[in-house]
Amino acid sequence: MTSIIDPNTIGKPVRPRRHVRTLTGYLPEVDASGKEKWPKGEEKVWKSGMRSLDNNVNSITKSFVNHVQTSLARQPYNLDDLGAYQAAALSVRDNLLVNWNETQLQYTRKAPKRAYYLSLEFLMGRTLDNALLNLGLKDEYKTSVKSLGFSIEDILDKERDAALGNGGLGRLAACYLDSSASQELPVWGYGLRYKYGIFQQLISPEGNQLEAPDPWLEHQNPWELPRLDVTYGVRFYGHADRLDDGSGRAIWAGGQEVLAVAYDVMIPGYGTKTTNNLRLWESKSKRGFDLNSFNAGNYEKAVESSNSASAITSVLYPNDHTLVTLNMFGKELRLKQQYFWTAASLADILRRFKNMGKPLTELPDFVAIQLNDTHPTLAIPELMRILIDEEDLTWNAAWKIVTNTFFYTNHTVLPEALEKWAVPLVEHVLPRHMQIIYDIVILIYLFLAVEKKFPGDRDRLARMSLIEEGQPKQVRMAHLACIGSRKVNGVAELHSDLVRTTILKDFVEFEGFSKFGNVTNGITPRRWLDQCNPELSALISKTLKLQKGIWLKDLYKLEGLLKFTENKTFRREWAAIKQRNKERLAHHVLTTLGLTVNTNAMFDVQIKRLHEYKRQTLNILGVIHRYLTLKKMTPAERKKVNSRVVFFAGKAAPAYYIAKLTIRLIVNVARIINDDPETKDYLTLYFLPDYSVSLAEILIPASDISQHISTAGTEASGTSNMKFCLNGGLLLGTVDGANIEIAEEVGESNVFFFGHLTPAVEDLRYQHLYHPIPIEENCPALAHVLNQVSAGLFGDGGVYEPLLNTIRQGDYYLLSDDFDSYIEALAMVDDAYRDRDEWIKKSIRTTAKACMGKFSSDRAINEYAESYWNIEATPINGNK
Amino acid sequence: MTSIIDPNTIGKPVRPRRHVRTLTGYLPEVDASGKEKWPKGEEKVWKSGMRSLDNNVNSITKSFVNHVQTSLARQPYNLDDLGAYQAAALSVRDNLLVNWNETQLQYTRKAPKRAYYLSLEFLMGRTLDNALLNLGLKDEYKTSVKSLGFSIEDILDKERDAALGNGGLGRLAACYLDSSASQELPVWGYGLRYKYGIFQQLISPEGNQLEAPDPWLEHQNPWELPRLDVTYGVRFYGHADRLDDGSGRAIWAGGQEVLAVAYDVMIPGYGTKTTNNLRLWESKSKRGFDLNSFNAGNYEKAVESSNSASAITSVLYPNDHTLVTLNMFGKELRLKQQYFWTAASLADILRRFKNMGKPLTELPDFVAIQLNDTHPTLAIPELMRILIDEEDLTWNAAWKIVTNTFFYTNHTVLPEALEKWAVPLVEHVLPRHMQIIYDIVILIYLFLAVEKKFPGDRDRLARMSLIEEGQPKQVRMAHLACIGSRKVNGVAELHSDLVRTTILKDFVEFEGFSKFGNVTNGITPRRWLDQCNPELSALISKTLKLQKGIWLKDLYKLEGLLKFTENKTFRREWAAIKQRNKERLAHHVLTTLGLTVNTNAMFDVQIKRLHEYKRQTLNILGVIHRYLTLKKMTPAERKKVNSRVVFFAGKAAPAYYIAKLTIRLIVNVARIINDDPETKDYLTLYFLPDYSVSLAEILIPASDISQHISTAGTEASGTSNMKFCLNGGLLLGTVDGANIEIAEEVGESNVFFFGHLTPAVEDLRYQHLYHPIPIEENCPALAHVLNQVSAGLFGDGGVYEPLLNTIRQGDYYLLSDDFDSYIEALAMVDDAYRDRDEWIKKSIRTTAKACMGKFSSDRAINEYAESYWNIEATPINGNK
Ligand SMILES: Cc1ncc(COP(=O)(O)O)c(C=O)c1O
Ligand SMILES: Cc1ncc(COP(=O)(O)O)c(C=O)c1O
Repeated sequence: MTSIIDPNTIGKPVRPRRHVRTLTGYLPEVDASGKEKWPKGEEKVWKSGMRSLDNNVNSITKSFVNHVQTSLARQPYNLDDLGAYQAAALSVRDNLLVNWNETQLQYTRKAPKRAYYLSLEFLMGRTLDNALLNLGLKDEYKTSVKSLGFSIEDILDKERDAALGNGGLGRLAACYLDSSASQELPVWGYGLRYKYGIFQQLISPEGNQLEAPDPWLEHQNPWELPRLDVTYGVRFYGHADRLDDGSGRAIWAGGQEVLAVAYDVMIPGYGTKTTNNLRLWESKSKRGFDLNSFNAGNYEKAVESSNSASAITSVLYPNDHTLVTLNMFGKELRLKQQYFWTAASLADILRRFKNMGKPLTELPDFVAIQLNDTHPTLAIPELMRILIDEEDLTWNAAWKIVTNTFFYTNHTVLPEALEKWAVPLVEHVLPRHMQIIYDIVILIYLFLAVEKKFPGDRDRLARMSLIEEGQPKQVRMAHLACIGSRKVNGVAELHSDLVRTTILKDFVEFEGFSKFGNVTNGITPRRWLDQCNPELSALISKTLKLQKGIWLKDLYKLEGLLKFTENKTFRREWAAIKQRNKERLAHHVLTTLGLTVNTNAMFDVQIKRLHEYKRQTLNILGVIHRYLTLKKMTPAERKKVNSRVVFFAGKAAPAYYIAKLTIRLIVNVARIINDDPETKDYLTLYFLPDYSVSLAEILIPASDISQHISTAGTEASGTSNMKFCLNGGLLLGTVDGANIEIAEEVGESNVFFFGHLTPAVEDLRYQHLYHPIPIEENCPALAHVLNQVSAGLFGDGGVYEPLLNTIRQGDYYLLSDDFDSYIEALAMVDDAYRDRDEWIKKSIRTTAKACMGKFSSDRAINEYAESYWNIEATPINGNK
Repeated sequence: MTSIIDPNTIGKPVRPRRHVRTLTGYLPEVDASGKEKWPKGEEKVWKSGMRSLDNNVNSITKSFVNHVQTSLARQPYNLDDLGAYQAAALSVRDNLLVNWNETQLQYTRKAPKRAYYLSLEFLMGRTLDNALLNLGLKDEYKTSVKSLGFSIEDILDKERDAALGNGGLGRLAACYLDSSASQELPVWGYGLRYKYGIFQQLISPEGNQLEAPDPWLEHQNPWELPRLDVTYGVRFYGHADRLDDGSGRAIWAGGQEVLAVAYDVMIPGYGTKTTNNLRLWESKSKRGFDLNSFNAGNYEKAVESSNSASAITSVLYPNDHTLVTLNMFGKELRLKQQYFWTAASLADILRRFKNMGKPLTELPDFVAIQLNDTHPTLAIPELMRILIDEEDLTWNAAWKIVTNTFFYTNHTVLPEALEKWAVPLVEHVLPRHMQIIYDIVILIYLFLAVEKKFPGDRDRLARMSLIEEGQPKQVRMAHLACIGSRKVNGVAELHSDLVRTTILKDFVEFEGFSKFGNVTNGITPRRWLDQCNPELSALISKTLKLQKGIWLKDLYKLEGLLKFTENKTFRREWAAIKQRNKERLAHHVLTTLGLTVNTNAMFDVQIKRLHEYKRQTLNILGVIHRYLTLKKMTPAERKKVNSRVVFFAGKAAPAYYIAKLTIRLIVNVARIINDDPETKDYLTLYFLPDYSVSLAEILIPASDISQHISTAGTEASGTSNMKFCLNGGLLLGTVDGANIEIAEEVGESNVFFFGHLTPAVEDLRYQHLYHPIPIEENCPALAHVLNQVSAGLFGDGGVYEPLLNTIRQGDYYLLSDDFDSYIEALAMVDDAYRDRDEWIKKSIRTTAKACMGKFSSDRAINEYAESYWNIEATPINGNK
């Protein structure tokens, strides 16, 4: 008889997929005496062939040349800077791998409790420089590539940012990974491997933001390790049938199944062998290509399933604190992204846990899962589903495990940014999860707890429910994340307070205060001081007489700088470095945009996502105000004015109309004032396109003053404020987010505060709505500025009406209330800047105090480790 | 003023694309004294880091272990055979690269005339074993991987075939590349990098062929070198406007532009340093992803352009000698494939030529381009377009260059396989090329030449035209290829004769006989003897007392075996090897399909694409006839019958209904007769699914007799016939294709011929059409067989009616005419096999004579080099 092959195997790989082969989670076999057995072939031969770190110039050079010849298939004849970058990156990758392997093996051997950081965004920026720093091999590579005809700076500059994030939330995740590894903590990140990161921002001749794709993987990415054998199937749609055996189990079948494939990114710690892992998932069709449709001539149908599978990880959603702009189609895809990622990550975490042979009830003793915002909240019903449907646990046992495993960080109290999913959509895409969510509602809220604690309080029940009534009903993800987690935290003192007193108030009353904490955000001083400001780092080491390896891991040491404030030479050096950083920025602007920047002026910087709550509009209106004032002056008066260069950078969500109008206004104001011969020596303005981590690394060290001017109570923390301070930039801000804590550290006298405080905000908004006062009365200065824009001073005023009207009507973000005090604060800054010597002292104090330890992400991650996850440092000791 | 970025640059990479950086085509600078300058850094440092061949066990082991650790990011703990294959492949790749680099540099230095082989298919099969053989490092790798705990056989077996071809034409291209490199000829191949190769064939429980995708690139392909910096834009659609300056130039603009990206595959020569290049193009969208559509919520539109660009190289068309099955959509995509590939290849060839600084009129002195079948014929109008529109040459000068650069190989005279493209389609997709084709028609045919030579012969003009009248009009690609080439050849004596006397008869009369030649196909003895039959290779070396390095490059040496025919020990060894090869095949069938094969029987093999002209139907009907005959015998009579195991393998074009019915019939006949206790000791039948190069390498050495039974005049050459003979398998065939020349070499007595000859075919077909004789009269034996099938002996007979009717009515392939003599020939084979000793002698003679040199692809490629391309061997001498 002839062979018959099961048609169900069509398109499936012949080799069965197994997970055991990857190192992570593997433990060598031991013999009777407990000695580890060598797994394959002759131990001696393997060992003599195995590499250790290349840590001298000779072996680095050899490795570089070898990668040029083999991995790149090139020769010195045709190697350009990009090729040299790739060769250097590959050789550094080899080094990271040695440590990565040892770290993973050690974790498996020691089996400590681990923490997993689930974040939909990781805004990593460039890797090579950071890897060299953390490995301590920067000088060796510099020497090596020099002898081969390259400069390390040019090579570093060829790397493309890994920009898998929108802004603060994603960059925070990146800083936390750096600190976890530096603190030797067993932490892994889980995210998505977007084919296209955050869009590239271009500015059209009219001043509009245009968005171009960011095909960052185009030139092969040396920093990822494809794990094509680590895959999980993830289901969507289909139907979920409850069994009627009273077990609460259900069977979820049918629908679409797609494959999640793992890619690992190595995360080296600074000055440690620990090299942690960031695992990113790529989506792939399970079946590949539908040849039958192809043969029937329907090519489009043939690739359809493969497309809709790969669509899931195709692109990062470019929305930051704005969800309203998604339409139905976009919403469905976004929901699929979230589930795809949490399902694959959980499957992977559970597999690793099960390898230890412990019962699932012990999961919380070995696994902590941090939910970075509500994006991964589906992990809660997903873990319930696995435990109940697949592992046969009871509802109560499952719920106990779940609520001891997850931790939830809230990142915003802005109502429009709180995630909600329409019930019909969830029902359609994830029918089983919708059932579980309803079960949670019924079991937890009605019968078990809430109803008991607050009998008859129906309003409270409705407020607290996971389901918001309406057309359609919606699932409130923040509530689900809160109820399903062991602890909840905000990201700065004020913000955590707001979480407890506003959006989760009822939950605090229900579950008690102790579940709700605060961990103020932090930043990694490796990237945000040593890498972006090497001269300042060197000066600090010299002054403190400490190797940077010491103070970069103990930022409190910076306080030692305080006593040098009065040292003139030190101040001169400090000022000279700031000046050179300003020139570096000017050089960048010249080479990329062809514009000449006046480096004798004060550099005033606002760089962050474009959003109404961040109030770039306030800043640009302030600039216009300054311009109008300058115009009214005589030349002699002007001569006394402090020269100022204002920099903006930031992206707007592509569908965020008002934010894009603000960009347009900035660009067109720049066009007029930078060309005005009367004023341009005193005031110029630049919008630098395509804000990114790498651009931030050039801008931040060059700033004299930076603006963090959100309406009070809206910015959860902010982290760029910390970065400016660490680099000796002063801060002009509202009493909001981490600004407050920074001021506490550095002393109010070194920070320029203005504007209404949080408690006043609600009231002001109420007044605007119900007792509106015309802006001409409320704030004549601002009214004048708005009128000039309307009148066409910066081109067709009609274009800006929708933007201006947000202020004239409603003024939700209180620009008219804060404008006058803003202008005053700007004047105070000018005054202060005039006393240059005192300014430098403030600058030194800002670095020394504002960022003395508290704002290092090392401190933050240790708080999470101790007070939340309960994990411990697990050092990796050299080669065994 | 703020930066303004040109919105046209959206999606374009920041780095301008340049080509100069790749080695190929690069020449080191020389100083005044003519000494080459070292290009970068310190020569000493570079050189000391640079690798040469790893040619001892130690360095191979080190390289293997290093790849495990770094490229694969694994450890001995988790390395399976697939991982070991990848590590071995990467280490071999490094070695190939050293030679590849030297070869390309040498070609550029010496600037010899080069030949380019344009083929839409390259059926490469596996690479690792071949690379080890050609590098001469098989033993070293064997020892090395053994010490690391692996067996080389298991490792080799993990490689996935590169199956970028349908059958003979693609495999021929692969053999020619091997021979070009082995003969040190400066030849490059150009093809497409299909994401999915030829489909994987599965057989359903009913016996139907099912097609599954072949995602061969899924696990990263170590054999290709991505050349992401070598890209060309290729245009489709748009409009072409002739300039009215009398220059004949036109401007082609608008439409779609896609990007061709190069991937290089290294082609090592056997026993030489020469390592040639096969460049495959991948299609990519120029713009990536349309973020605007995405933000507007239209994800599908967002990826559309990127899809339709990548669609071009998504899949190999699975049609072999059948074009009729394509619908409009498929046709357009196929046309785009052809143009995409020829345009990118020509652009690349011209760039390389221009680097030499010679005028374009000298192109034919430095470049020969071989068109493998008509698939790349668009290269002719494309080169005209470039020369006229872009290089400002006159029509005549351009035409002279074109017609001295191209060479065209015809592969079929089957009318249904001759490529024609509908004029409206070409006009739509390639408007400028359609103009040029019309210009050729008018200038060459009407005014210049044909009309002059045959004035008034309108029939001849119509026959010869590039445009076939009809609804719609069609472009005849064979005519275009012929008129635009310097020489035309067929692939076997008979076939070349048919080309000259049938499809291109008028052109012979017009252009003269000398333009039309023959190069009989060949096969590489490295893969098709040494690799697939290592024991036979060893026996030959031992017997001839020659190192295989000698005779594998001079197959005429095999004639030396003739004098051992009478040596009994030799014959015994010869027979024993055949037996072990049969057992190897049986083992393969057992492990892959779970079926036990009787290795004491004669192995009768027909493996090739399923096609009516190849007449697998004749074979299966012969099997049924034998079965019916056996059934009628007494057990005693049966005992005298020669036991036979019949093997089929081959794929059918997915839309080729009749061919797929033949598979179904074979599978269902097998099901019945293999289970029949009366006959199964004498006759069994296997259809081995998913025929591939690797399967051929197991089947061919195991065959006692193989069948090549196409209707006379239909098989251009065949190459598997040569492979069987080289491995001592006898041949049962029609007087067709290369069978004839094989018989000339080996002597008719060693070959079993049957059937009508080519001159009779036309006449028989005429009779079938106009004077049909019922099959019962014409061939009662066949009629009986057909009736049994109809009657349901092998399951529902109705299913097979359409297949049977092709014989009962019209019988275009003359089964009824050849059946009786086929059965007779089979009987002669049985008779001959009974005298086993004489059979072995025939087998030895077949190897020794049939393939004595003539059928080596080394001979064939040298004929092309000398008589067509006029290129010379360019040896690469060791490391300099
Ligand atoms: C590219 C990028 N976006 C966003 C942010 C967060 O900025 P902020 O804290 O001002 O919102 C940062 C922080 O440095 C960043 O580098
Ligand atoms: C996979 C495959 N297909 C097709 C062919 C060509 O076979 P034939 O010459 O019998 O058409 C070969 C030759 O060996 C082959 O290996």
